[in-house]
Formats: sequence, structure tokens, C-alpha cells
Amino acid sequence: MKILVINGPNLNLLGRREPDIYGRNTIEEINDMLNQEARGLGIEIKCTQSNSEGEIVNLIQEAMDNYDGIIINPAAYTHTSIAIRDAIASTGIPTVEVHLSNIFKREDFRQKSFISAVAIGVISGFGADSYIIGLRGLMNYLKKTT
Amino acid sequence: MKILVINGPNLNLLGRREPDIYGRNTIEEINDMLNQEARGLGIEIKCTQSNSEGEIVNLIQEAMDNYDGIIINPAAYTHTSIAIRDAIASTGIPTVEVHLSNIFKREDFRQKSFISAVAIGVISGFGADSYIIGLRGLMNYLKKTT
Amino acid sequence: MKILVINGPNLNLLGRREPDIYGRNTIEEINDMLNQEARGLGIEIKCTQSNSEGEIVNLIQEAMDNYDGIIINPAAYTHTSIAIRDAIASTGIPTVEVHLSNIFKREDFRQKSFISAVAIGVISGFGADSYIIGLRGLMNYLKKTT
Amino acid sequence: MKILVINGPNLNLLGRREPDIYGRNTIEEINDMLNQEARGLGIEIKCTQSNSEGEIVNLIQEAMDNYDGIIINPAAYTHTSIAIRDAIASTGIPTVEVHLSNIFKREDFRQKSFISAVAIGVISGFGADSYIIGLRGLMNYLKKTT
Amino acid sequence: MKILVINGPNLNLLGRREPDIYGRNTIEEINDMLNQEARGLGIEIKCTQSNSEGEIVNLIQEAMDNYDGIIINPAAYTHTSIAIRDAIASTGIPTVEVHLSNIFKREDFRQKSFISAVAIGVISGFGADSYIIGLRGLMNYLKKTT
Amino acid sequence: MKILVINGPNLNLLGRREPDIYGRNTIEEINDMLNQEARGLGIEIKCTQSNSEGEIVNLIQEAMDNYDGIIINPAAYTHTSIAIRDAIASTGIPTVEVHLSNIFKREDFRQKSFISAVAIGVISGFGADSYIIGLRGLMNYLKKTT
Amino acid sequence: MKILVINGPNLNLLGRREPDIYGRNTIEEINDMLNQEARGLGIEIKCTQSNSEGEIVNLIQEAMDNYDGIIINPAAYTHTSIAIRDAIASTGIPTVEVHLSNIFKREDFRQKSFISAVAIGVISGFGADSYIIGLRGLMNYLKKTT
Amino acid sequence: MKILVINGPNLNLLGRREPDIYGRNTIEEINDMLNQEARGLGIEIKCTQSNSEGEIVNLIQEAMDNYDGIIINPAAYTHTSIAIRDAIASTGIPTVEVHLSNIFKREDFRQKSFISAVAIGVISGFGADSYIIGLRGLMNYLKKTT
Amino acid sequence: MKILVINGPNLNLLGRREPDIYGRNTIEEINDMLNQEARGLGIEIKCTQSNSEGEIVNLIQEAMDNYDGIIINPAAYTHTSIAIRDAIASTGIPTVEVHLSNIFKREDFRQKSFISAVAIGVISGFGADSYIIGLRGLMNYLKKTT
Amino acid sequence: MKILVINGPNLNLLGRREPDIYGRNTIEEINDMLNQEARGLGIEIKCTQSNSEGEIVNLIQEAMDNYDGIIINPAAYTHTSIAIRDAIASTGIPTVEVHLSNIFKREDFRQKSFISAVAIGVISGFGADSYIIGLRGLMNYLKKTT
Amino acid sequence: MKILVINGPNLNLLGRREPDIYGRNTIEEINDMLNQEARGLGIEIKCTQSNSEGEIVNLIQEAMDNYDGIIINPAAYTHTSIAIRDAIASTGIPTVEVHLSNIFKREDFRQKSFISAVAIGVISGFGADSYIIGLRGLMNYLKKTT
Amino acid sequence: MKILVINGPNLNLLGRREPDIYGRNTIEEINDMLNQEARGLGIEIKCTQSNSEGEIVNLIQEAMDNYDGIIINPAAYTHTSIAIRDAIASTGIPTVEVHLSNIFKREDFRQKSFISAVAIGVISGFGADSYIIGLRGLMNYLKKTT
Repeated sequence: MKILVINGPNLNLLGRREPDIYGRNTIEEINDMLNQEARGLGIEIKCTQSNSEGEIVNLIQEAMDNYDGIIINPAAYTHTSIAIRDAIASTGIPTVEVHLSNIFKREDFRQKSFISAVAIGVISGFGADSYIIGLRGLMNYLKKTT
Repeated sequence: MKILVINGPNLNLLGRREPDIYGRNTIEEINDMLNQEARGLGIEIKCTQSNSEGEIVNLIQEAMDNYDGIIINPAAYTHTSIAIRDAIASTGIPTVEVHLSNIFKREDFRQKSFISAVAIGVISGFGADSYIIGLRGLMNYLKKTT
Repeated sequence: MKILVINGPNLNLLGRREPDIYGRNTIEEINDMLNQEARGLGIEIKCTQSNSEGEIVNLIQEAMDNYDGIIINPAAYTHTSIAIRDAIASTGIPTVEVHLSNIFKREDFRQKSFISAVAIGVISGFGADSYIIGLRGLMNYLKKTT
Repeated sequence: MKILVINGPNLNLLGRREPDIYGRNTIEEINDMLNQEARGLGIEIKCTQSNSEGEIVNLIQEAMDNYDGIIINPAAYTHTSIAIRDAIASTGIPTVEVHLSNIFKREDFRQKSFISAVAIGVISGFGADSYIIGLRGLMNYLKKTT
Repeated sequence: MKILVINGPNLNLLGRREPDIYGRNTIEEINDMLNQEARGLGIEIKCTQSNSEGEIVNLIQEAMDNYDGIIINPAAYTHTSIAIRDAIASTGIPTVEVHLSNIFKREDFRQKSFISAVAIGVISGFGADSYIIGLRGLMNYLKKTT
Repeated sequence: MKILVINGPNLNLLGRREPDIYGRNTIEEINDMLNQEARGLGIEIKCTQSNSEGEIVNLIQEAMDNYDGIIINPAAYTHTSIAIRDAIASTGIPTVEVHLSNIFKREDFRQKSFISAVAIGVISGFGADSYIIGLRGLMNYLKKTT
Repeated sequence: MKILVINGPNLNLLGRREPDIYGRNTIEEINDMLNQEARGLGIEIKCTQSNSEGEIVNLIQEAMDNYDGIIINPAAYTHTSIAIRDAIASTGIPTVEVHLSNIFKREDFRQKSFISAVAIGVISGFGADSYIIGLRGLMNYLKKTT
Repeated sequence: MKILVINGPNLNLLGRREPDIYGRNTIEEINDMLNQEARGLGIEIKCTQSNSEGEIVNLIQEAMDNYDGIIINPAAYTHTSIAIRDAIASTGIPTVEVHLSNIFKREDFRQKSFISAVAIGVISGFGADSYIIGLRGLMNYLKKTT
Repeated sequence: MKILVINGPNLNLLGRREPDIYGRNTIEEINDMLNQEARGLGIEIKCTQSNSEGEIVNLIQEAMDNYDGIIINPAAYTHTSIAIRDAIASTGIPTVEVHLSNIFKREDFRQKSFISAVAIGVISGFGADSYIIGLRGLMNYLKKTT
Repeated sequence: MKILVINGPNLNLLGRREPDIYGRNTIEEINDMLNQEARGLGIEIKCTQSNSEGEIVNLIQEAMDNYDGIIINPAAYTHTSIAIRDAIASTGIPTVEVHLSNIFKREDFRQKSFISAVAIGVISGFGADSYIIGLRGLMNYLKKTT
Repeated sequence: MKILVINGPNLNLLGRREPDIYGRNTIEEINDMLNQEARGLGIEIKCTQSNSEGEIVNLIQEAMDNYDGIIINPAAYTHTSIAIRDAIASTGIPTVEVHLSNIFKREDFRQKSFISAVAIGVISGFGADSYIIGLRGLMNYLKKTT
Repeated sequence: MKILVINGPNLNLLGRREPDIYGRNTIEEINDMLNQEARGLGIEIKCTQSNSEGEIVNLIQEAMDNYDGIIINPAAYTHTSIAIRDAIASTGIPTVEVHLSNIFKREDFRQKSFISAVAIGVISGFGADSYIIGLRGLMNYLKKTT
């Protein structure tokens, strides 16, 4: 089982700025936790990050024949990108949407997601743990549907 | 560590009707899975269900001195109950909001939650697994904040 | 053929107050008319009333194995209760929604019904007669679909 | 007692197309049922149909001195015609609004009726039976108010 | 100078019904007043009425080579007819929009006019006098622009 | 019969600026035309102008025992002043609202009037002639209601 | 003179949680203050609290023949309950709506009240004092209208 | 292959007025171009125009057994007619919606089409050429689906 | 303790007009009641009224060093004046907002207050008594916070 | 005559996924059809595709001195990209907007186009044929305007 | 070159209250800075302040023949005054709108400006410096357009 | 002091197209003016431009350890990019938002800025001068806060 992890814009700054909102973990630390969890579960994962909407579309398309599932934190593109939504829908790869912060406690414009309706499910608010439990949820989903 | 699980209206019918939306697990089966998971994690849980908004407010209030956290699937009250929101906010008990279905794929009126802004986090769309990974998320949160 | 009649909040006050809006019939008189009509049609009916949203959900759930259809006047809950909507949808019992007054002549917030989309049909504005012709409509529907 | 039945645009196609929405009865069959029911009730009825908003306004105006009541299925004009609304209000003829399908299960733009607020009452969703029980409701209303 | 007066749907019922809103003048009386006023001003007028949106479009088009100006009370079509708006704009005939009642005191949906933006001006609320002073306004406008 | 004419903010600049919108007449010329018309009709009028909302409220209140009617062009305050609306409603003086330009051809925010609902009627778009025909309309109204 | 005081959901937690919003008085202390004030005014009062919408409807209905007026703090149900509104309207008991906090400083969804339009008046923002001055207002109202 | 071309209200004025918006072609010239194109493609076409919504509904209904497809420029009725929409949906005739002008550059109210959702496709902005390329599109569609 | 009472536009007409909405008390009578109540409470008050938004801003600013609190009935400016809101916020004087009528029973545009969010609290619907109980509420507030 | 064809995000997946919505043609097949059509018409075309908004802006800018017109299917960026709109407007290159599917039958958020108002015209719903007839329309437009 | 500086309501309180929002500079200090800057640039300026909308309209009108440009901080009237907007548009004096605070970080109702569309440009958020750089911008504009 | 200037999409076309909206200066000329002004102020600046949202996010992130402030003209991304907003907020670099045109005079969708709320301040409408005075404002801000 191979999972692609996609982090959206500005997540490469994690842990350096605005720890009140996003926590103190850097993206590298989250990747380490995910890798460790994945090894324990016998899953192969690859962690990526991009600030570009088009590159994230590319990542999803390239995953089509190479990965069984995607964990995506679309960050700012959650609320503005129909292109990423269409990439997930068009490739048909099972995808879990995760958010570090509880986006429902934030600005109004962060409470609409273009991605959620094409995801298996959504996890929001558990900090770095959102990824870990998202991995669990995705793995269980893939097991059941295979 | 003691966790209260609260299921909202009509969840007692789970598995009997509309399996396309809510899956084939009965509420008893979900409770069994949760109990088994909890035992494995060394957590004590109690599973409850009510069709009444007022009773759910009571359950939350009674949890105040007796439980460390709440997992709630508010079902229909997700979208209409400020009373349940206020109960969670007033008691201050760490609470995780879970949904069986991905509510973002459903009717417009199911896409607004009065509960999310007072929850630690929200998990939606993983079927019975929403509860299991919600329990994980809640446990990790409680460990970190204690 | 067994039909459950459910009256929502404040309908127990019928005939005592606001006759300009709701007419001069008491709930007992409406029940009598319905029983008389039902006997004429060879149908067994039971008339209930509750001021509690949760109890109305319970009534609908309990009807699942005991009644062939429901006539419901959800009164104020028409406009605020997704829980009652979900109960009707989850149990799958054929349901007719009735209103004494023509709700389209009243306040804006009374013109949205959460119930209508899960009902067979809706009858509004005929006073006590809404129940009588609703019973006709429900009976004919049940005959056709059995 | 004389009742005018007015059918709006495209209802002359009933039974030929889209039976999933409108049922398999043709307009002639519905007229027959209505005539039979009317004879049983000792009422004289006349059934009309028009695709033109202006003609429907004319029909209502001509009913002013010749009919005691109107049963109208305004079809598409339900949602767009203030002229028909004004005709009903201006002539003051007691009018019942009926719909074959449950309009509350359909597109958003079909859920606003310009007619309802000037009708005695509204019946929606019972197929051809909407007319029959509408006739009952109108007859009882006329008896009470005469 | 030749002026066409166009009265929209249900205005042929004037004086017979709803005098509280529209006053006690019949359409014939208004036409008489207008004819008398026109004679005094040395203007030739023709008064028409139609319940049909299409016919009103036809009337406006036929006025193109035969009349110098139009006084229109579009009644219900004020709020729903883009076709009449386009007819006025396309023919380019100077047009005054009049209303018997003050439409700003009535239902919300009567407060939007599709016609006003293509009219020279709008007069609302003076009863039959709206036509008389509208005729004055139109005559003065035509004098100035010729 | 005594009529008070009230001109709102910036109308003292008439004829000096933006003639495309407001025409080339100065406020003095309009006042002259109005005085001439009034003399012809045997009416006494007084013309006032103010840039201050509060002063316009004062003018209306002072008219209470001294004038039979008001012609008001509230200009910018049309769209923002509930105080002027309340003054008209509270004093109960018959009031005609006039506008030089056809406000329905202008910005969206100019198409809502707080004043119209408390005026006898509204005249818009006839340039200086709006006042003249407004005076006619007001005079006829006062004659009929006295 | 007998007054019923009704406290809505979560008000039994007063003084224990969120003192920044609701103050440090417990519900018992507020009841004591009210009883003391009532004795001083020669009024008999009874203080109740419920977390259930249906029970609050019951309380209002039972007050119909036993109390001269109601002071209600509907808490969360202020913004969601048409059933409580209808109970007040149907029973016709003079009712004063009170709020501890100034709801206009809080979330958007707390600024719409279904109750206000059927209350004599509304008092918001004076902490426990809202009840005391509400009692004064209600008493004076009852004196004037009896 | 037989195609019916339907032109909506005011399109009979084409070429005479507002050439900036609609171009300089008359309706007769467009019909000629269409006939010439049709002959080239071996298609039989009939060109019609009506200012009446009801007549357009009639035209569509009469096409049911006589034409393989429809090209409609509903003009003003694009934005207001559910009756025409229902006629197209009920008859099931493949229909292409065309507009001379690019309606997306015009008033807001011209940017909503009731017709588009029941058409095969929509062509807007190419002047008389919208019809020609619409004919191509319709012909290709019919070939593929037969 | 010194309190400034500010009455907004048209309140000087109280008792003369529209007694159904505002009651039969004149502003002088309300001032007398307030003075009497103030004497009983050992408070010094000054009653003012202005029809001008700017003057009311001036009054609030001048109160800054001379009064301990303000009771304001902003009347029409409640719904339109950000300047008065800013004056209250900028001066920081504790302010109680009062209304004679229950504004929640009136037009939609009267149900939004720019003032409420900067007031201690709001009292609406008790007629002249709104001022009296507002004085109580303000006095108690000042005692507690001094 | 040289035409640039620009395909937006995910259109490189055409024919592989979601054929119900987008048809079974691959992007290469559509390009082939277009090339063949272009040769027949004596036009030179170049077909491009990009998943990146910025690259599409670049493509349009680079077309400025090299192409006579553009055919663009902006796909997801139709609904979110003002940058692409501004590129078309700034370069002034005649542009035709095409869509494979009838976007008016899809989600609400797909029914608003930022591009349409700066395009010559829009073609939607004809599958691969949208491009072919778009090419015709563009060619005819260029011929007329050169 | 002569410039009029107009400060709106409550700006006379600057520096005394709410320094977190508006900074610690008094209006006199800002005027001093502006005068110093103006002297350096060889410009004559006059600084004014008013709490009254009507007076600000007067100030703008009086500037018509006496000043080359205006710098206005309309404060609260930014969001509510069409009269000030019309004064600027009618007089045609080049005007720069400035704000001390960044209004885009504040309440929703402060983010709409009636003034911006008639100003040359807008400067917001630089504290007292907004005036200084606004003066630069206005001076450069006047140089270029003279 | 080092300042990064970032120009968004299509600004590289400045001076070539649409001079009515954006002026006749090319981006190179604006850069030259800025460099000259910067030298005069003893500031080091670097001017960049990109059509890609992702690249602009990269530019902002790379500025984090290398520049003291940013002047950004986000052009089209002003209204659509939360990613750029988050980059500014996450890096915490003081940023001034500038626009050549007065965006408040343009289309509705250009009047909402995602960037303004995270900028120090906003300058709009002064053409190339917006950058120059923005540089002044930023420099003064940085001096005060260092």
C-alpha cells in the first residue's frame, strides 16, 4: 500500500511562525511522525509540499498509477481551488483531507472547502495528529474497499 | 481516562435503514468496536444515545465532573442546536465531533455545524471508523494537555 | 391499515387561542372528526400530540413496525427540526404533512419546511379539513403502492 | 355549485413524458376522474388547460360571475406569474392550488409560489389525487363560508 | 402628437374589486379622464388594455411608427417582464411608467421594476391622477426633445 | 392651500455641475417655475433647501401646523435617512417625493428609498418637471381628501 | 400578582463557567435576588429552569391559568425555537425576554431572536440585574393593562 | 433531418434598432443565412418568431412529432420563463440555445438562464453566426445520438 | 452621580402623533418621570433632545468630563448612525440604549442597531418605563464598576 | 490566420476518467480533430495544455504578437481566475471560451465564469464539437473584423 | 496650490481615546505635521473638523471656488453618507480619502466606502502618515492634471 | 533598509494595453521611478514580477530573512488568493498593498481584497505614484517600529 502526502502553500513554514494557530511542529517533524506511523502500519508513504496550485494538480495526476491513496492538507487552496478538486475527482484516487487547525474556529472564508465533497472524509483540528489519524482512516478505507 | 460517547437523534436506527448513507453497522456494533478499541488503549468509555436535544444537554452537563472527554455525533442537532454548543462551551469538556457520512456531500443545510467551533476537532466521512479515529485523536489531545 | 396522527407543539391549545389563525376546533374535535372519517374508510388511527421534538422523533421511530402511514402536523418544528425529517426518512414510513393555516400567508420563517421534502405530499390551509383530506390522500397512496 | 379547473402550461402533455415526475395519467384521465368525483358530490365542474399566462388570467376573470370556486394547477407559472396571483386576488374567487408532484423535492426555483398566498390552501404531491382531494377541500370550504 | 396608453393585466377589473388598493375608478372612467385631458392639451390618445405579456409587446412594437410616446401601467408585468422592457428599449419610443397605487407600500416583490430603467420617468401612488400627470410629463418631455 | 417645498443636499448646486444627470436648470429657476405654476393654481408655496438631515427633519416638523402638504426631493438622504421618513410619518403631512433624474437608471444604492413608503406618491425622472407635476398631484390629492 | 420565571438551557451552570460572559452569580443567587425584589414589590414569583425546549413549552402552557406574567431567559433557544415563540403567542401571557449578556456583542447567530416579536419588551446586557429590572417592567406593564 | 428555429420576443425588430448590441442583420437575413447553411448540410429547417411565451410553448409542443431538433433564441424569456424550460424538458426534443449578443457582458438579470440546463448546449455572442454554428452543433449531436 | 439623557430625532413629537406605536406620553412627561425617579435615587440627570446626528455626537463628546453615564434613545439614528456609535465608543462613557416601542415588532430595517454593541445593555418595548428601568440598570452598573 | 488553443487544468486526463461528464475523447483526439478542421479552413493552429494558472497567463501574453485569436477551455480556472481574465483583456486578443460539458447542468459554483465577459462568445455542452464550432465562430469573427 | 483638509466625526477626540486603533497623535499634532509638510512643499492648507454630515457637505461646497483639492477622512460617514459622496462628485474637486486605521482589519460595516468611488485614490492604515502621503499623492495628481 | 517590490499577474504588460485604466507607464518606468526614489531615501529595493500565484508565495517566503518590508501590487490575485495572504501573515514581514487604479471604481469582484487585512496599509488609485507614496509609508512605518 502506497500513500502520497501532499502539503499545500506555506506549510513549509510550519513551526516557525504563528504557533498559536498551527502548533510548534515543523513540516519535517510531521513527516517524521507520519513515516514512523506508516512503518508501523506496513505502509509506504511519500511526503511532498508545494506552494503552487498547478504543481499540486500535477502531483495528484502523477499519483494516478503510483499511489493507492492521498492525504492532502490543501491549506489556502482548500477554499479557492476547483482545479485541485477536479484533479482528485478526475483521477479517482481515494483522498483524505486534513487540517492542522480547526478551520471552523477561523475566518468565514476558511469555512468553505472545495475539496471536502470529493474526499472520502475530512479531519480538522488535531494538529499534527490530524495526519496520523487521517492515515489510519485512509488505510482502513482502502482495506475495506479492496 | 474516562470518555463519554454521545449519539444524537435517529442513530439508534443505524444499520436498519439508509445503508447507502450511513453504512450497515448498527449502533450496537459501533459501540462494540469502540469498547474494544478503548480496552486496547486502556480507556474507560460509556456509550449513550438520545433523540432529545434537552437530554443531550443534560448528558453533557452530567459529564462535567465524571468524564475527561466527549465524543459526540450530534446527527441532526449538528445543524440546529445552539443549546448543545453552549453545553459544550459552558462545561469546557474537551469534545470531538464525529460524523459517519461525509456531510459535505449532502444537502446544503447539513454543511453548517453549530458544534464545530467549540470542538477540539471534527472528523467526517469514515463511517464507524470516524468514532475509532476520533477516540485516538481525543486520547492524544488529552495526553498532551494534561 | 393503521395510521398514526402526530400533532406538534402547542396544537393541544387549539380552539382556545388565536382562532383567527387556527380556527375554533379543539384538538379533541379534530381527533373525533378524524376517527369518524377513519371508521367510514375502514382505517384504524391513533392520535397523538407532543410539545417535544425528541418525543416526536420517538413516536415516528415506534411507528416503524406498527403503522402503515403517518399524518403529521409538525407545527413550529416544521421550520426548525432536521431530527424529525431524519426520523421520517430513516424509518421510511409514508408520511403526509398537514397544516391548519395556509403557512404561505404567514411570517417568512414559516414558509420553509424541513419536512416537506421527505413527505409524500403536503396539505396546507384547509383548517381541520387538512387532516381529513390528508387521510384520504394517504389512504389512496398506500392502496396504490401496496 | 360550479367549479372551474384550470391547468397551466405543459400539463396537456401529462402521461406522455416524464412519468417519473408527473405520473402516468393523461390530462384527460385526470379530467375524467374529477368529473366522476364531482358527479358523486353533486358539483358541476369544467376542466380547462392553457399554455398562456394571459389566457389563464382571462379564464380566472371570466369565472368571476360564473363559478363558485377554482382549482388551479399553475404549473410553471406558479413560480413566475404575479399576473395570475393578481387575477385570483382581484376576482376574489375561492381558489385551491394543486400540484401533481411534491414541488418541495424539486429544483430550488420551484419552491417559491406566487399563488399560494392568495389561495385558500395548497395541495402538493399526491399525483392525480391532488385534484380529487383539492375538490373535497374546496367544496367543504365553500359549504362553510356560504 | 399621438400617445398610446397601455394598461396591463387585471386593470380591466379596476373599480370592481380591491378599491382599498386601486381606488374606485373603473378603467373606462380613467380612459374618459385621460381623453378629456388630452383634448384639452391638443393630444390624440388611444387607450388599450391586455392581460397578455406577448400582446403588450406587440402593442409597443406596433406603436413604433404610429405614436410619439407611450404611457404604460404594466401592473403585474412590471415586476416580471423583461420582454416588455426590451420592447420599449428596442423601439426607442419615449415611455412613462405609471402606477395607481404606491407600489413602495406593498409586497417586497412589487418594489422591483424591470421597466423603470428604460422609461423616461416613473409616477406611482396618485390613483387615476398618475395617468393625468404622467400625460403632462410625457407631453412636456416630447416638446423639449423635438 | 399652502405647500412647503424641501430640497435636500447638494441641490443648491443644480445647473452648475453634472448637467448630464440633473439637467441645466438651477434651483432658483426651478423655484421660479414652481412659484409661477403655484400662482396659476392659486396655491401658496415656500421653497427651501438644506444640506443637513437634522435641518430637514426640523423643516418637516415646523410644517406641521403651517402647511397642507410637502413636496420633497430628499436627494442623497432618500437612500440613507430614516429620520426624515419618521418625521413625515410622525407629522402626518401629505408628502410627495420627487426626483429630477430617473433614479432607476443609476447606481444600485440609489434605488432603495426610505421615504417612498410614507409618501403619497413618487415621481422620478422628469427633470424640473418632476416638481411641477408633483405639485399637480399633491394639489389634486389634497382636494380629494379634504 | 403571580410571575413565572423561566430559565433556558445551561443557565443552571451559571457562575461555574464562562464568568467573563455571564458573570459570577449562580442561578440560585439570581433566584434569591428575584425573590427578595418580588417580596419588596408584593409579588409572588416562581423560578424554574429547563434544558429542554419541549419542557419550556409545557411550562408556558401550564402558566396559562396560574400566572399573570412570565420573565423568560430563553438562552440558546432564543435563536432557534419557534415552538417557544408560539407557546407565548398562543397562551397570550404577557412575557418579558431577558438576557444576562449583551447579545449584540456576541456571535452573529445570537443576534436574531424568535422570541422578541411576541414579548412585551426585551432587556439585554445587565447581568443578574436584567431580571430585576425586567420584573419592574413587567409589573408596571401588568398594572397599566389591568 | 428537420430542425425548428424559434426566435423569442422582439427579435422581429433585429437590424432596425440597437445595432450596437444585436448587430445589423434583420431576422429575415438571419433566416436566409440559416436556410442556405441548412441546404448545404441537407437539413430541412423552419424559422419562426413569437413575442408570446405561451405561443413559444405551443411551438415546442407541436415540434414533438415533427422535428428532430430545435434551435431556440429565447431572448427575454431566457431569464424569466420556466414554462419554456418545461416544454423543452417535457417534449424531450434536443435543443440548442443561442444568443446573438454575449449575454455575460450585459445586465446581471440577463446572466441567469432557465433554459440552459435543459439544452444540449449554449452558444452566446457570435451575432448571426451563433445560429449557424448552433445548427452545426445540433446536427452533429443528432448524428451521434441516432 | 450625573446622568445625561439623550433623545434622538422626532422624539420631541411624542404624544402628539402615532400613539399606537409610541404611547401617549409627551417627551416632557417622560422627562418629569425621569427627574422624579432620579431624585428618589439621589441622581442628577439632564434631559436633551436633538434631531441632528452631528449634535448628538457633540452631546456625547461634551458629556465626557461632565457625566457618569448616558441613557440614549437614538430613535431613527439607531439604525443608520455609525458616528453616534463611534462617539460612545471613543468617549467610553457607560451608555444604556432604550426604545419606547418593541423594535422587534416593527419594520426589518429597525431591527439592526449600530448602537447596541457599544452599549452596556439595551431595553426595548416598555414605553416611557424603558427610561425608568434603564436608569435603574445604569445606576446599578455604575455602582458595581466604581 | 493563426489560432492558439489553450486547455486548462486536468484536461490532459480527458477520455481516461469521468466519461459521463466529459465524453470519451482524449485531448490528443480533440487536438487531431481541431488540426484537421483547421487545415480544411486554411488556418494554422497550435494546441497547448497547462495545469497552472500562471502558465496560462504566460501563454496568453506570449500569444500577443504571434496569434490572431485564442480558443480557451479554462476548465476549473473558468470559475476562479481573474488573472486569466485580465490577461485576455490586457492583450486584447479575440478569444472564444469553450466547454465540453454543459456547465449549466453542473454544480452552482461552475455556473459563474470570470472569463465570459472578456470573450467574444461562449460555447458550452457540445463535447469535442465545442472546439470545432468555436473555431468556426472565431474564424468568422476575425474575418469580419479584419 | 490650496488644499482643504476635512476631518469627520469624533476625530477631534484623537489621541485621547482608543489609541490602539487610532494611534496617540491628537488632531492638533496631525494638523501641525500637515502644515509643516505643506510648507515644505509650498502648498497652502487649511485643516477643519466637523461632527455633522451637513456641515461637511457645506465645507466641500464652499471649497469649490477656493481650493484646488481636498484631503478627507470621513470617519464614520465613510460608510453611511451618500450626501458627502454627492458633494464631492457635484463640485468635481479632486479629493483624496484617507484613514488612520486599516479599515480592512475592522468590523464588516467599515469595509464599504461610499466615498472611494468618487475619490482620486484611497490611503488606509498608516496612522497620521496617511495624511502626509495623501498630501503627496494629491499634489502629484494636481501637478499632472494641470 | 531593504524592500522587496512584488508585482502580480499581467503588470508586465503595463503601458502597452488599457492605458485608460492603468496609465501609460511601463513596469520598467515604474521600477526606475522607485529605484530613484529609493536611492534618495537611502533604501535598497528589488523589483520583481510574476504571473504565478505560487511564485509570489515563494517570493514572499524568500524575503523572510532578506528584506525588511514588502510593497506588493497583487493585481488579479488581490481578489482570489488566500495563499498570498497566508504567506504575508506567516512570514510576518511588514507589507504595503498598492494598486495603480482606484479599484473602488471598477467591477464588484475587484472590491474585495484578501490581502488588505494582513497589510499595514493600502494605497489605491494614484497610478505609478501609488508605489512611490507606498514606499514612503512603509519606510516611515519601519522607522517607527524599529
